[in-house]
Amino acid sequence: MGQIEEYLNRRAEDINRALNFYMPKSPAMPVIEAMLYSAEAGGKRLRPILTLATAETLEGDVEAVMPVAVAVEMIHTYSLIHDDLPAMDDSDLRRGRPSCHIAHGEAMAILAGDGLLTLAFELVSGYGMANGNPEKALIICRELARASGVEGMIGGQVLDLQAEGKKLELHELEQLHALKTGALLTCSVRCGAIAADADDDCLQALTVYASKLGLAFQIVDDLLDLSGTAETLGKMPGDDRAHQKSTYPALIGVEESQRKAEELYGDALQALDTLKKPAPLLEGLAGKLVFRDR
Amino acid sequence: MGQIEEYLNRRAEDINRALNFYMPKSPAMPVIEAMLYSAEAGGKRLRPILTLATAETLEGDVEAVMPVAVAVEMIHTYSLIHDDLPAMDDSDLRRGRPSCHIAHGEAMAILAGDGLLTLAFELVSGYGMANGNPEKALIICRELARASGVEGMIGGQVLDLQAEGKKLELHELEQLHALKTGALLTCSVRCGAIAADADDDCLQALTVYASKLGLAFQIVDDLLDLSGTAETLGKMPGDDRAHQKSTYPALIGVEESQRKAEELYGDALQALDTLKKPAPLLEGLAGKLVFRDR
Repeated sequence: MGQIEEYLNRRAEDINRALNFYMPKSPAMPVIEAMLYSAEAGGKRLRPILTLATAETLEGDVEAVMPVAVAVEMIHTYSLIHDDLPAMDDSDLRRGRPSCHIAHGEAMAILAGDGLLTLAFELVSGYGMANGNPEKALIICRELARASGVEGMIGGQVLDLQAEGKKLELHELEQLHALKTGALLTCSVRCGAIAADADDDCLQALTVYASKLGLAFQIVDDLLDLSGTAETLGKMPGDDRAHQKSTYPALIGVEESQRKAEELYGDALQALDTLKKPAPLLEGLAGKLVFRDR
Repeated sequence: MGQIEEYLNRRAEDINRALNFYMPKSPAMPVIEAMLYSAEAGGKRLRPILTLATAETLEGDVEAVMPVAVAVEMIHTYSLIHDDLPAMDDSDLRRGRPSCHIAHGEAMAILAGDGLLTLAFELVSGYGMANGNPEKALIICRELARASGVEGMIGGQVLDLQAEGKKLELHELEQLHALKTGALLTCSVRCGAIAADADDDCLQALTVYASKLGLAFQIVDDLLDLSGTAETLGKMPGDDRAHQKSTYPALIGVEESQRKAEELYGDALQALDTLKKPAPLLEGLAGKLVFRDR
């Protein structure tokens, strides 16, 4: 196993432990069971790992930033739960298991999503109080709210719903992904940087890194949806086609999609080169994400 | 018109103006239209008025606390939108108009609720940055997250769903309401107090005031549901009975419910008496809320 795989595995374990620690422990309430069901379902923990790896790269306190990383993962998980609902994408399978509303009913799935989103902001407030830097926590709170709000992730889901059955232009598809997956992914890097007291130049470079990487990641997702199985994807393959969703391979072809993903990967590395510190972790993570299938 | 009615009307207008000001102004996105639809639908603005009136009573900066008051109202509105969904209470009428999912479709209603909840936390972070007191804003952020999370309002909605078709014990009904409506209502008072730098004794007294008032308010709600019309209620009368929900009048009778509401009103006023400052506004508001029908 390569160094990056080891890092990914170790950090995913750290995050799983922390996720479990921060979950409510009240008497077995069905909504908490539904929250745990979706939060524990696994997934790559990509976003919180980016938060930790960014803080680590900038020599920040990685332990201290854990609640922020967990908050990012909670927001990501909430978005998956709500996106899967019958009124939205109507997906029965997620992360290799029945979706939250299939396993726990629609009412509990809606509330579990609401609960995870709310808990994320509680964690950020706790982070600020524990670290004696309330201002930094407030900035992170605002970053998270903006990235996941109607001008970020929620806006992207709206565009996605509107796009069903339509053929999008390439720039429309890019805007959709910039909001739907790019905003939170970029936010996860920015939050790690803010927690580690990044200066403006550094934050700017990391924002470019994350946004290029986010788009590359999405293109690779589209390519994998064409070639993967339910087992490797954790969701139904061909889901995009079934929902008549516009994808990169459908719009510009498989080869051009691959070329584009590699170009974005190059742009992401170039952004890292402008940092004052070497960033082997963030370089390695970018490679793993873009060349997931190899 | 009495002084308290004038105050309520004036503050409701202030809040409506501020709500509008803080709404996203992006290109006409259907989710923003759905958010506006529900936020502008009116309602008494009781919770944010309590936030402002509490800050005013403690001689805090009422203008500065406005984003917090608006955040409280956004969280309340999000909860109404999600509670009305077909998978939840399946209510077609709200605040005298078709519910959000009837007017804007289920997907947009889910996302509008998500958007309002997320925006609330963005407002609180903005409040902290504008006022140079990030720690106070973080405490308010945590209060809001706890009151609206699974150990507060969401937990109450779970109990409410579980209670359909069952006859609850009185203490179970009280716990349900303490979570479902009491938590956020109490939080709206506490946030106003924290913003106005209340000391511990004062915060404690106001917490008692708000929790007594919250329960009295709910009992009166149950009584009005028995006697009101769709026009006066803004929702379908007899809704509780139709959903086989336990109510105070059903459990302890109409007269005993009235007596209980008045007793709680007395308790709320008594809590105010322990404050070092006179609190005519909060007294008057309590009276208006408990004796709404008179």
